[in-house]
Amino acid sequence: MSAIQIYDTTLRDGTQGEGVAFSVEDKIKITRRLDRMGFHYVEGGWPGSNPKDLEFFRQIRNERFRQAKVAAFGSTRKAGRPADQDANLLAILESGVCTATIFGKSWDFHVYRALGTTLEENLAMVADSVAFLKSRGLEVLFDAEHFFDGYRANPQYAMAVLRAAQDAGADMVVLCDTNGGTLPTELKEIVTYVREALEVPLGIHAHNDGGLAAANSILAVEAGCIQVQGTINGYGERCGNVDLCTVIPNLVFKKRLACIPEENLVYLTDLSRYVSELANKSPESRQPFVGTSAFAHKGGIHVNALLKDRQTYEHIPPESVGNKRRVLVSELSGLSNLVYKYRELNLGPERDSAEYRRILNELKDLEHQGFQFEGAEGSFELLMRKAYNGYQKPFRLETMRILTELRDEGHVYSEAIIKLRVNDEIVHTAAEGNGPVNALDAALRKALEEFYPVIRNMRLHDYKVRVLNEKEGTGAVVRVLIETGDGRKSWGTVGVSSNIIEASWQALADSFAYGILKLKENGAPDAQAP
Amino acid sequence: MSAIQIYDTTLRDGTQGEGVAFSVEDKIKITRRLDRMGFHYVEGGWPGSNPKDLEFFRQIRNERFRQAKVAAFGSTRKAGRPADQDANLLAILESGVCTATIFGKSWDFHVYRALGTTLEENLAMVADSVAFLKSRGLEVLFDAEHFFDGYRANPQYAMAVLRAAQDAGADMVVLCDTNGGTLPTELKEIVTYVREALEVPLGIHAHNDGGLAAANSILAVEAGCIQVQGTINGYGERCGNVDLCTVIPNLVFKKRLACIPEENLVYLTDLSRYVSELANKSPESRQPFVGTSAFAHKGGIHVNALLKDRQTYEHIPPESVGNKRRVLVSELSGLSNLVYKYRELNLGPERDSAEYRRILNELKDLEHQGFQFEGAEGSFELLMRKAYNGYQKPFRLETMRILTELRDEGHVYSEAIIKLRVNDEIVHTAAEGNGPVNALDAALRKALEEFYPVIRNMRLHDYKVRVLNEKEGTGAVVRVLIETGDGRKSWGTVGVSSNIIEASWQALADSFAYGILKLKENGAPDAQAP
Repeated sequence: MSAIQIYDTTLRDGTQGEGVAFSVEDKIKITRRLDRMGFHYVEGGWPGSNPKDLEFFRQIRNERFRQAKVAAFGSTRKAGRPADQDANLLAILESGVCTATIFGKSWDFHVYRALGTTLEENLAMVADSVAFLKSRGLEVLFDAEHFFDGYRANPQYAMAVLRAAQDAGADMVVLCDTNGGTLPTELKEIVTYVREALEVPLGIHAHNDGGLAAANSILAVEAGCIQVQGTINGYGERCGNVDLCTVIPNLVFKKRLACIPEENLVYLTDLSRYVSELANKSPESRQPFVGTSAFAHKGGIHVNALLKDRQTYEHIPPESVGNKRRVLVSELSGLSNLVYKYRELNLGPERDSAEYRRILNELKDLEHQGFQFEGAEGSFELLMRKAYNGYQKPFRLETMRILTELRDEGHVYSEAIIKLRVNDEIVHTAAEGNGPVNALDAALRKALEEFYPVIRNMRLHDYKVRVLNEKEGTGAVVRVLIETGDGRKSWGTVGVSSNIIEASWQALADSFAYGILKLKENGAPDAQAP
Repeated sequence: MSAIQIYDTTLRDGTQGEGVAFSVEDKIKITRRLDRMGFHYVEGGWPGSNPKDLEFFRQIRNERFRQAKVAAFGSTRKAGRPADQDANLLAILESGVCTATIFGKSWDFHVYRALGTTLEENLAMVADSVAFLKSRGLEVLFDAEHFFDGYRANPQYAMAVLRAAQDAGADMVVLCDTNGGTLPTELKEIVTYVREALEVPLGIHAHNDGGLAAANSILAVEAGCIQVQGTINGYGERCGNVDLCTVIPNLVFKKRLACIPEENLVYLTDLSRYVSELANKSPESRQPFVGTSAFAHKGGIHVNALLKDRQTYEHIPPESVGNKRRVLVSELSGLSNLVYKYRELNLGPERDSAEYRRILNELKDLEHQGFQFEGAEGSFELLMRKAYNGYQKPFRLETMRILTELRDEGHVYSEAIIKLRVNDEIVHTAAEGNGPVNALDAALRKALEEFYPVIRNMRLHDYKVRVLNEKEGTGAVVRVLIETGDGRKSWGTVGVSSNIIEASWQALADSFAYGILKLKENGAPDAQAP
């Protein structure tokens, strides 16, 4: 048994976050992935609350996991009704899990206002519900909702609720900072008190409304909690639950506690991005440890020092969490940043050459026009190659015409006609699409495929548009960022124009040109995630 | 003098964040705004490092501020060169500020590796630089870079650096967790030790690489720091600096410390979004206190309790920081959420009516198709009105044709031809644009203006596209979110289609329809930000 257990509630509390939803299939995939990472518990859902969660438990019932226990969530029995007739508790039993996590009120105000019952009945609800599930052979975790608010308001009652759960046989009592507003020092003092007063093992469940969830979870562990509940990427109601992608590396690398096996942490960045993909949420670039900016260096002094020693501006090595170092080029960056980028490519003029200064100025001009290379390493590399040794794309657009039409029958139709010069040949072709960019993409593929069959493997992964000078309305300059992949790696490209089709063309053309360049260069597959 | 000073470095350290850049004009606007909020210091830039920052100090030199002191940033003198001949220190003097913040090394490893000088020379660099600026009459703050890493590695030397600054006359010594990896308990212990060992006032400068910057700043204040350095929205190198929008409300509302006047905090959300606009960064929805999701409730149980009492699931009232409560409707939400939304509109069927159930199912069907109403309250309200009392938009598209063409001379051109039914009249018109959506927007405005002159005030503020089923490449279903404003308020609308033009049409049509509806309803101006 690890010293500290990780309990994931992405599939339940996480889905209460704005814009987060998972299909049953997504939930199953995430459960398997968390198990392979070495998570101790995966809370799959609330079987009593919706049919999707019931279906999840039905499908997962016969799977064997290496380590993770799948838990079902639910509330204590309703007031004035016996536990063995409570639909919500019966749904937990029917879900077939071995672990139940039930939440109950520990703040007297909530008992009155939200439940509308008496303090005595609430204690009985906690005790009966725990005892009932224990009598049916389940492991039972009791989530004490609003525990810290409750303790502040009425410590005797809050403690009585915990004791009711403990005495009824709960395997663990989890202290929840449900509204997320408790400060670190106070939280640690309260956990320390509870740890001394009770025998039952304790867990912590923190929300991030004060921006303090990670610190609160770590301090709770210092005060004696042996389980941390949270979600991948901190998804959850309002500001979210504590982000396990932040807590886990702090516990493992900083506090040197046994928790998730250290060797599995190289998959943490992958895990974070995988879950954000399935949640259809853009990853947060500044997310600690796993964000794309987490090890991105922009200041010239920082990059200069990093060239001498990585430790100068990195608290841990990025590879230890499967992330990577990035050096940004911008108006703030000195030549060091550009030198770093050329070194990565094994390319470029000698250090201190006037060439670097010229290239840097060219870049700054483009950034001034609205190009942004920080999310478009594909376009940036093409540009560096062009600036250094006159690289040219293997094709050039001569003319294009794109038509989008809503016909009387209500069907919208797009068509692209392009004339392309490829290796000194002219290709004149046309294609339909269910949108103008799709039609353009189709026509371009059609024209290029006979010359470069490799592009059949390339897929557009994401297509983003950002209005730059917003006051101009729909006439504004737009920046299109395209993310393309070939199943093994992916790359970003950028286009900028006041015409969205032209900006899309630039980004599309770069994406194919970069893909063709890279597929020629190397073909070795990357390491697979667990 | 306040008990705790707020020192903002958005304009300097903030711009080291990925994708963050400000024009000189932006910097001046932000400085004025921070001053009106009651910030104590605004670090404007590093005059010795780039011409933009020099220009900022030149332009701001003669402005009078209510409270904020404008500070210039720079490094200690270079090794082996006298302070009064150091270009960087002279640039600070020339900038005309009364406050200088200079940073120096306090980690022995950095002295060797990054500076390549001796420990003794570094102490002299700190002492000379502080003494030189003091001798010219400036207030001098000394930022001890990497102090916590330095203290862990060589506490005697780290303390010697602080003493050198103190003894040379520094007005404040700021303890920097530059790499952002220090844990809360250790940080508090170190600050407590320093507080006892030195006489000079102390500040804290925390980075968020461990996700702990807010907690670390608060604990440092508890241990005796009287200044918190940070940035608006936590912009900054890698994972960013501490977010002052998180720290300030914690200090004011939770710790009840004098800091920013409490009555100014109602402008905090506005300030956060204003700075993100100027930085051209999307606001982070889950940002504590000021994010759009910070008081967004999705779970049915939460909303049900909120209808009874706001305190049940909110740690502070959203209005106290100028934010607002939002209730989300999704597959997780019960009828309570929908009832809440109708109540906001003073509309809708009686509670418990079967009508609600029907409307909820309709919404869930649309969400299943890819519509997302969480960021599109305009479209959502139109839909609620349609579901409840058969609301119809005041216009309907009969046909459209949009052409985008790259002609031989390299100019890209777009044209839209639309046939629109407005109040039973047919309007058949055409317009050009510098992109297809702009052409469509122009044609639609042209057709509607004669019927609804109010739309002349409406402007598109933002236009976002998201690919939903990414594996389909450019043929994927896209969701277009449009943000429109009329100078007083703004609203979001949504369109979903595999054709980007059609999705844009839906969102555009909703944006005009909603604007027409609201301008008819009320005309009272909103409260102005300070």
